Amino acid sequence: MTTLSASESAELNHLLDTRQPNYGLPRQFYHDEMLYQAEMEAIWRQDWLFAGHSCQIPQPGDYFLYEVEGDSIIIVRGDDGKVNAFYNVCRHRGSVICQEPQGSVRRFICPYHQWTYDRNGRLLLQRGMQEGLDKSQLGLHAAQAREVEGMIFISLASEPVNFDPVEAVIGPEARPQGLARGRVAKIMDFEVESNWKLVWENNRECYHCNVNHPQYIKANFDHYNVDDTIPRVAERLKAVTTRLEFKLTTLGMSVRDEAGLTEFPDPDHGIWYAANRTPLVEGYVSETMDGRQVAPLMGDYKDPDVGTLRIRSLPNFWIHASCDHSVAVRLTPHGIARTSIRMIWLVDSKAEEGRDYDLEKLLPFWLLTAEQDWQICANQQRGVSSRAYTPGPLSTYKEYNLDRFLRWYIQEMKAYFAP
Amino acid sequence: MTTLSASESAELNHLLDTRQPNYGLPRQFYHDEMLYQAEMEAIWRQDWLFAGHSCQIPQPGDYFLYEVEGDSIIIVRGDDGKVNAFYNVCRHRGSVICQEPQGSVRRFICPYHQWTYDRNGRLLLQRGMQEGLDKSQLGLHAAQAREVEGMIFISLASEPVNFDPVEAVIGPEARPQGLARGRVAKIMDFEVESNWKLVWENNRECYHCNVNHPQYIKANFDHYNVDDTIPRVAERLKAVTTRLEFKLTTLGMSVRDEAGLTEFPDPDHGIWYAANRTPLVEGYVSETMDGRQVAPLMGDYKDPDVGTLRIRSLPNFWIHASCDHSVAVRLTPHGIARTSIRMIWLVDSKAEEGRDYDLEKLLPFWLLTAEQDWQICANQQRGVSSRAYTPGPLSTYKEYNLDRFLRWYIQEMKAYFAP
Amino acid sequence: MTTLSASESAELNHLLDTRQPNYGLPRQFYHDEMLYQAEMEAIWRQDWLFAGHSCQIPQPGDYFLYEVEGDSIIIVRGDDGKVNAFYNVCRHRGSVICQEPQGSVRRFICPYHQWTYDRNGRLLLQRGMQEGLDKSQLGLHAAQAREVEGMIFISLASEPVNFDPVEAVIGPEARPQGLARGRVAKIMDFEVESNWKLVWENNRECYHCNVNHPQYIKANFDHYNVDDTIPRVAERLKAVTTRLEFKLTTLGMSVRDEAGLTEFPDPDHGIWYAANRTPLVEGYVSETMDGRQVAPLMGDYKDPDVGTLRIRSLPNFWIHASCDHSVAVRLTPHGIARTSIRMIWLVDSKAEEGRDYDLEKLLPFWLLTAEQDWQICANQQRGVSSRAYTPGPLSTYKEYNLDRFLRWYIQEMKAYFAP
Repeated sequence: MTTLSASESAELNHLLDTRQPNYGLPRQFYHDEMLYQAEMEAIWRQDWLFAGHSCQIPQPGDYFLYEVEGDSIIIVRGDDGKVNAFYNVCRHRGSVICQEPQGSVRRFICPYHQWTYDRNGRLLLQRGMQEGLDKSQLGLHAAQAREVEGMIFISLASEPVNFDPVEAVIGPEARPQGLARGRVAKIMDFEVESNWKLVWENNRECYHCNVNHPQYIKANFDHYNVDDTIPRVAERLKAVTTRLEFKLTTLGMSVRDEAGLTEFPDPDHGIWYAANRTPLVEGYVSETMDGRQVAPLMGDYKDPDVGTLRIRSLPNFWIHASCDHSVAVRLTPHGIARTSIRMIWLVDSKAEEGRDYDLEKLLPFWLLTAEQDWQICANQQRGVSSRAYTPGPLSTYKEYNLDRFLRWYIQEMKAYFAP
Repeated sequence: MTTLSASESAELNHLLDTRQPNYGLPRQFYHDEMLYQAEMEAIWRQDWLFAGHSCQIPQPGDYFLYEVEGDSIIIVRGDDGKVNAFYNVCRHRGSVICQEPQGSVRRFICPYHQWTYDRNGRLLLQRGMQEGLDKSQLGLHAAQAREVEGMIFISLASEPVNFDPVEAVIGPEARPQGLARGRVAKIMDFEVESNWKLVWENNRECYHCNVNHPQYIKANFDHYNVDDTIPRVAERLKAVTTRLEFKLTTLGMSVRDEAGLTEFPDPDHGIWYAANRTPLVEGYVSETMDGRQVAPLMGDYKDPDVGTLRIRSLPNFWIHASCDHSVAVRLTPHGIARTSIRMIWLVDSKAEEGRDYDLEKLLPFWLLTAEQDWQICANQQRGVSSRAYTPGPLSTYKEYNLDRFLRWYIQEMKAYFAP
Repeated sequence: MTTLSASESAELNHLLDTRQPNYGLPRQFYHDEMLYQAEMEAIWRQDWLFAGHSCQIPQPGDYFLYEVEGDSIIIVRGDDGKVNAFYNVCRHRGSVICQEPQGSVRRFICPYHQWTYDRNGRLLLQRGMQEGLDKSQLGLHAAQAREVEGMIFISLASEPVNFDPVEAVIGPEARPQGLARGRVAKIMDFEVESNWKLVWENNRECYHCNVNHPQYIKANFDHYNVDDTIPRVAERLKAVTTRLEFKLTTLGMSVRDEAGLTEFPDPDHGIWYAANRTPLVEGYVSETMDGRQVAPLMGDYKDPDVGTLRIRSLPNFWIHASCDHSVAVRLTPHGIARTSIRMIWLVDSKAEEGRDYDLEKLLPFWLLTAEQDWQICANQQRGVSSRAYTPGPLSTYKEYNLDRFLRWYIQEMKAYFAP
């Protein structure tokens, strides 16, 4: 099943055993090329990956490309309105077919010899070829694709894990946000000189927020952990939660009321996806610089006071959504020490730039927060690449989710490479 | 003989067996670093390589450099008028000697400690060295060099295959063109993100011409293959061939009269070089945008109506020559996924730029065609690098030469690495 | 002890035996990635490395970074005035702590979670962590550091070789120069496309000086070797040496009086450090374009006529010091075919730019000489990378020190990798 040799597999299993509970990962996990290939195989070519939003391809024939570890994947809306994923590789001589990163096609026509496929990947024409070739065997190679409430996930696995629980858990939580009825306000791409796991480790704790994210902590409560939530803050948190709960009940939505970041992932129960709603601080109705609404209400919302919706799925996706906009983050490894990161801001489809919203007010909150984190991750990559780096202890108060992430990671790898 | 380990050699032989007849090559052939090293050893460091034209170095001491896979080769005209090839490496401390890509020298003087060699590579001076060193053992390391009708070929092999048949076959065919009496009108260098074999595969079929090369197909017939040559075209082709044959007979030249590209190479008989003449379409006397002559007649030609001369030799050379100019293409691998390509336009030595020819009229036909092909090859490289790429069937009507090329390649590799 | 596998170690030992006495090194020594890793382990992570000058960090808390093969080292003056070296890696999550290449700190505060260390590397604060962690085990990882007469050396070895003999030999020789009382006039960094050994080989002979260093040979005698020192030159050399000796005696300094470069290193006695004073040509009191003094006298000097002081230590340092300035060169390998080179010009601490010295007069002599050498080294790297390169004979008259260097290198490697 694996492409690792027996000795590489043994070496890998040994390495996976070197992580101590409640400590970071050893250096090789951020440095070793063989480990990286193993991750690509066990995680990135197996798991479900967020690719983009439904509203990027509203009509049949609309497509965008997603480049994952050397593979170009075409995400296209088929004639039946369902989303398909195909490898961007002609079945004749292997040329890429779509050269533009996004567009709209009636048919896929390879630019080399004009082999022509329909929007469901079936080979229609191969002019110049001899008789006797079986067109039905020469359709585009497909990947798995699923669409849930405006979010598109793909998997490169031939038999990926069951996606239905994701739909069951994330779907109802996401529905009121109306992402499927959104429109792209901005897409930004970053190349961060950091291993993808460090980006997650950064995302899974707010221990670093106080000093590094001055704007983020003005809007949120989750940097208050159990150990440092003073009574006054606990009372505030309880009050805003109770108030929000009361309001949301009418909309069939629930809200979380604990201190710190929501526990995620749950390696003990194989949970790699989650969604929940949390209150914002008093006076804030959106994750913006001053807390004010900056675009029309999205989805089913009638009132801006809905806290924030947060969805995440491993290994490559999280999104924060306020009443008026959402910001998705998509990770893609690009070598052991580099991660390509795409951020997508959505607003309601009826919103018009200039009239209903302004990028100068929409972007800064998350753009600043993200750029602060990308810098942190690059600093950490430089340090953990040193031979002198040794994994340090994690804070049981503030880095419990980081520990959960590392346990999830180790378990995924071990399960795949079990001897 | 080979530098591959036993297990690498076994792996390589297994890989060579994976190609199915009439299908493309599997992914590793365009992706695997070990395969690339094996190709360098079995083909590029063994076979005869086109280096450049005689008219680039008309006088003794004139030289140009050719960089082949990390080796800089000095191609120099010796005192006896013969072309020599030397490694551009001083025998003292290994410095490169010639730093300029072309020039003229009386002697080769190493810039480091001024060891001095004559134009036949013999060590003349080594001031500062002790007595007792044998100068005759310290001449420049030589490569093989042969000159045929204005074309210079080299081989890095110590005992290369016999070159005489090339001279016998190509020589007479090329002679009337007078390449040796040409002059360089333009040299252009390209770095194409594509494996060298893909460049050949592209060159060996005109299945892609109709859509990709609008200017090429206006001048030529070879995109009409057996399967799509309608009676009207067949009649035209027969008429132009007959007419041209009649004229050329007086010059001792012959012309080919079949549809499609000339069959080449011939792996069953070990033929890796070829030359032939083909008619242009009616009204065209040169491969130019409008078919008109753009420079004075070359060589022995008295009349522009001589069709086109085409010469090719594996693994790195082809040339198209019209009555008034020639365009040579030289390939050099630069890693598994990159090829350095040089194009050289020649005109008659007596032609003067501005007076007798104009680059704006001389270059576009082949420059456009080439750039179209380089883009195609880069697209294909991106696709065949995908894990989802699987070799597709080849058109027996239009890709017979591509199949011949792949068979030649597999045979060359197998012969060299035979267990 | 070594990280090489048994087969790699055997291959390496075989390679080390391929060098012939009085010949250069074979190609693999400048080309092979495994060899490079072995050098990093046996030499660069074992030996003492020059890091910089004391006057770059005069006060407690002043620091600069030195990047050695992926490790960032903080060189900092501690509260006790002694120089410390720490790995720039937080003991918590491994982030780099200092991001600026130089600066001054009261405490080291990691930018990620604000773990705080004192200037002696001790962990002071780790807010947010649970009770029970032993701070004394979480101080910054230290490297070895030694300061001698204004020069700072570090070693990444846990038990480096004895540094005391260096202090005993170099210290007294360097003292009158007063480097510790200097100030940085200029720091320049170069990336040279050449293996670090080629840079040393270039440094260890002046056979190349006559043609390549027109300004250097006007000031110095060391390009006159035993074989080409004509009587007139020998007399001049004797005269200037005698005169200088007479003067220096009063200052307790000595001067060398032989032709050619001082013999260094001495592989037969394990001598990898040296210092000596040599006369300049008549009329020159400083290594400047016209030989004139260009800055105030340094150190204890009362008279500009003190020749030049030269200090060197393997594997990465040499310095030339005239009466009025010094120029240090620090090498750091950056891959098998690249070397990062830092040059540091010092003048007396009381000198003020514009008033007492002018960079336009201070820099050219050594900047030109250095750039000439970097070009030479890059040319040589290109040549020795060729498969056609074979090691040539060394001049016993002029390249004796190069042979000594290569013998030292082979012995260091053999000692470390002894089976």
